[in-house]
Amino acid sequence: MSDAVLQYLRDHRYEQINHLIDFLKIPSISTDKQNKEDVKRAADFVANYVRHIGFEKVEIQPTKGHPLVYAEWMGAGEDAPTVLVYGHYDVQPADPLELWESPPFEPVIRENRLYARGTSDDKGQVFMHLAVFEAFMRTEGKLPINVKLCIEGEEEIGSENLYSILDEKKEQFAADFAIISDSGMVSNDQPTILYGLKGFTGLEFTVHGPKNDLHSGLYGGAVRNPLMAMAHLLASLKNEEEVVTVEGFYDDVEPLLASERILMSEVPVEDYPKTTGVDQTISEKGYTAIEHTMARPTLEINGMFGGYQGEGTKTIIPSKATAKLTCRLVPGQDPETIQNRLIDHLEKHVPAGVQLELKKEPLSAKAYKVDPNHPLIKKAAESYQKGFGKEAVYVRMGGSIPVLEWIDSIYKMPIVLLGFGTPDDRLHSPNESFPLANFDRGLITLVDYYQSVRKEK
Amino acid sequence: MSDAVLQYLRDHRYEQINHLIDFLKIPSISTDKQNKEDVKRAADFVANYVRHIGFEKVEIQPTKGHPLVYAEWMGAGEDAPTVLVYGHYDVQPADPLELWESPPFEPVIRENRLYARGTSDDKGQVFMHLAVFEAFMRTEGKLPINVKLCIEGEEEIGSENLYSILDEKKEQFAADFAIISDSGMVSNDQPTILYGLKGFTGLEFTVHGPKNDLHSGLYGGAVRNPLMAMAHLLASLKNEEEVVTVEGFYDDVEPLLASERILMSEVPVEDYPKTTGVDQTISEKGYTAIEHTMARPTLEINGMFGGYQGEGTKTIIPSKATAKLTCRLVPGQDPETIQNRLIDHLEKHVPAGVQLELKKEPLSAKAYKVDPNHPLIKKAAESYQKGFGKEAVYVRMGGSIPVLEWIDSIYKMPIVLLGFGTPDDRLHSPNESFPLANFDRGLITLVDYYQSVRKEK
Repeated sequence: MSDAVLQYLRDHRYEQINHLIDFLKIPSISTDKQNKEDVKRAADFVANYVRHIGFEKVEIQPTKGHPLVYAEWMGAGEDAPTVLVYGHYDVQPADPLELWESPPFEPVIRENRLYARGTSDDKGQVFMHLAVFEAFMRTEGKLPINVKLCIEGEEEIGSENLYSILDEKKEQFAADFAIISDSGMVSNDQPTILYGLKGFTGLEFTVHGPKNDLHSGLYGGAVRNPLMAMAHLLASLKNEEEVVTVEGFYDDVEPLLASERILMSEVPVEDYPKTTGVDQTISEKGYTAIEHTMARPTLEINGMFGGYQGEGTKTIIPSKATAKLTCRLVPGQDPETIQNRLIDHLEKHVPAGVQLELKKEPLSAKAYKVDPNHPLIKKAAESYQKGFGKEAVYVRMGGSIPVLEWIDSIYKMPIVLLGFGTPDDRLHSPNESFPLANFDRGLITLVDYYQSVRKEK
Repeated sequence: MSDAVLQYLRDHRYEQINHLIDFLKIPSISTDKQNKEDVKRAADFVANYVRHIGFEKVEIQPTKGHPLVYAEWMGAGEDAPTVLVYGHYDVQPADPLELWESPPFEPVIRENRLYARGTSDDKGQVFMHLAVFEAFMRTEGKLPINVKLCIEGEEEIGSENLYSILDEKKEQFAADFAIISDSGMVSNDQPTILYGLKGFTGLEFTVHGPKNDLHSGLYGGAVRNPLMAMAHLLASLKNEEEVVTVEGFYDDVEPLLASERILMSEVPVEDYPKTTGVDQTISEKGYTAIEHTMARPTLEINGMFGGYQGEGTKTIIPSKATAKLTCRLVPGQDPETIQNRLIDHLEKHVPAGVQLELKKEPLSAKAYKVDPNHPLIKKAAESYQKGFGKEAVYVRMGGSIPVLEWIDSIYKMPIVLLGFGTPDDRLHSPNESFPLANFDRGLITLVDYYQSVRKEK
């Protein structure tokens, strides 16, 4: 590893963290129209920073929504590999504001953690790459490999315009592999290779009974109660052993390899009672909680409602009941196929006397998985080791990042997820923070990684 | 039947309806503290009216809540029977006001129906007795039998203070039988002997899972989803054939007699598609909708909620789910026993990984039933025939009137339910009304009934 680069990072730590603080001060909340100009300012920050470092081509590309920052430095030459670095400069809303110990857009350091909205998700992690690029340029005058930056402003609102940009500008964004630092580690100092995420599909449905709420005394025994019909329908979807009982749900699931089960058994188990308040983990029959969350599909009811919800009693048969379902999918499962199998199941099981109204969730994603033995992944594990002094663990996660599937399907390039977040970061919640120790260790990891992948072409 | 009494009613129809309109103008909404004085004014109206007619003892008895009007006329002598006439002068709230075609407390007649809150439930029906008493007193100078009036002001808020009054003042309220006109007929001109009502018990329960809503991707597969646990619990209570599957639920149910099934088969079937909007009736296996609503116990979910209920999708595992249940009970079933059997069932079936929180519904009632062949009931059928020119049908109803059980258990007297309401009256809803045709036919029925029961002692 280049001592000069690391020395630069040590020497300029205060200055760089101040730059990050300036970046964090911009309330680039993508979902709130009132912050449209702030989002633009955050895009400008990124563009100006990389222009200042010496990136050759820097563009703020307009979209129908918030702009995308594209920048490239191709000075490593045609023999060197090209990396596409993806990240996002937009942030989640900060409310409820009253729960923040310090204002969300006035960054402060407490107990060696930097507190502000976006410190971990994802401004802080994006900035780590910028800091490393700066150090390379200022000391060696160049980057180890060719770099294309794609930093978007709509991740927190579903990356609404990214797919079409990636699809239309194939040549511009083409690279040998991608790096994304927008994820976390299983514990605060445990380097974590994230090699798979789940896909996603959803469905909302309403069971319609009588045209109005009815008197339970006068009509109980004459009409089907939509809430009871809903209970029967929902209970028919999954049994008490957490096995989904929808026909064909598991048909296309890639089986969990014995080698992966070994990797998963090495992952330190989350302290579930502490993080969830639940004494007992419950997972699919035949699989541990780690295996189920990481690598087996799930079906969850996210919301359900109907009838009287106030204090006390109201003796009605309600006119309708609604439930919202989502599934997390694993490699092999097609979101649309699963959505249709859910619909088939519900239509087949809906009892007489009530009608079913279906609403397909428009968002969906396929699962993403990269071979944990891929050389780029193995190298990431080695760089993590150098940065954190600890051997990395290999995990898949139950979350979904649609951009992974897009990059995968459009460019067929491997994606390396180099995340430095921690379970204590409180993403999307009040008091988001990021440990400065991981900022420092992450920089070492990134310096090593960019150098070590130089020959990967 | 006394022609003079009937002639009086015909001659004074306009005047009496104007008195009823004055009574209806008072917004005696018992649940609303702002109407406390109005409720009092409605009590005064009843007391003044009967004092004016010539009742001997008229009291406005204070309670912890709204007062009870007690009045008696015992001039028929010790050889004549004494009737306790129960009714209520309080009304339901009128909101949503914007749905009323004319203001709820400004009575108007449209198409021979009197529109106002309380026309059917129960001021209008109470007033019919007052009108008949007035006619007897003004023409014959006496009533055919001894009368005790008990007109309360808290029926719409659960008759909170009535039980203790009935229990404490046994001697004052003692009578040979009771008449209540606070119910309806199966169609607008079909006299209906209501000889049984259901009892009632209820339960609210919450399934508690994680301490906070959890990310469905990170925790799906590790914790039990309270909404799914709720669905399984609810589905375990009743099967799709509408048979309650709670152990012991039917143990104490008095079987439905063949003779009653014949009576019920003669009841004109409600036009369920019109009144409910549901094409297909659904009832307990082995019973018709009429039999189930009238004479078999029911278990209904009145409300259910948990998790995300807004627009679109929120990928959470919610921390909890709540359901509200009530049962309508038939003779033989004890409300507390059934409540406990429900609790036993839920505690036995709650799956691992979630906790159950139970909240017993404090209100309960036993079912009430009188022998449809009782001479007082047979006489009611005859009087109905005179008033309406049609043979009465015999029904039981799925609703619950706790005062029936109290009068039954404290006084052991038969109760005659002489109701004149119709399915179109819209009780508890905007545009409550009462057909003036039934006012006229009901007066004839009551005149005949009071005369014909003279010898029933």
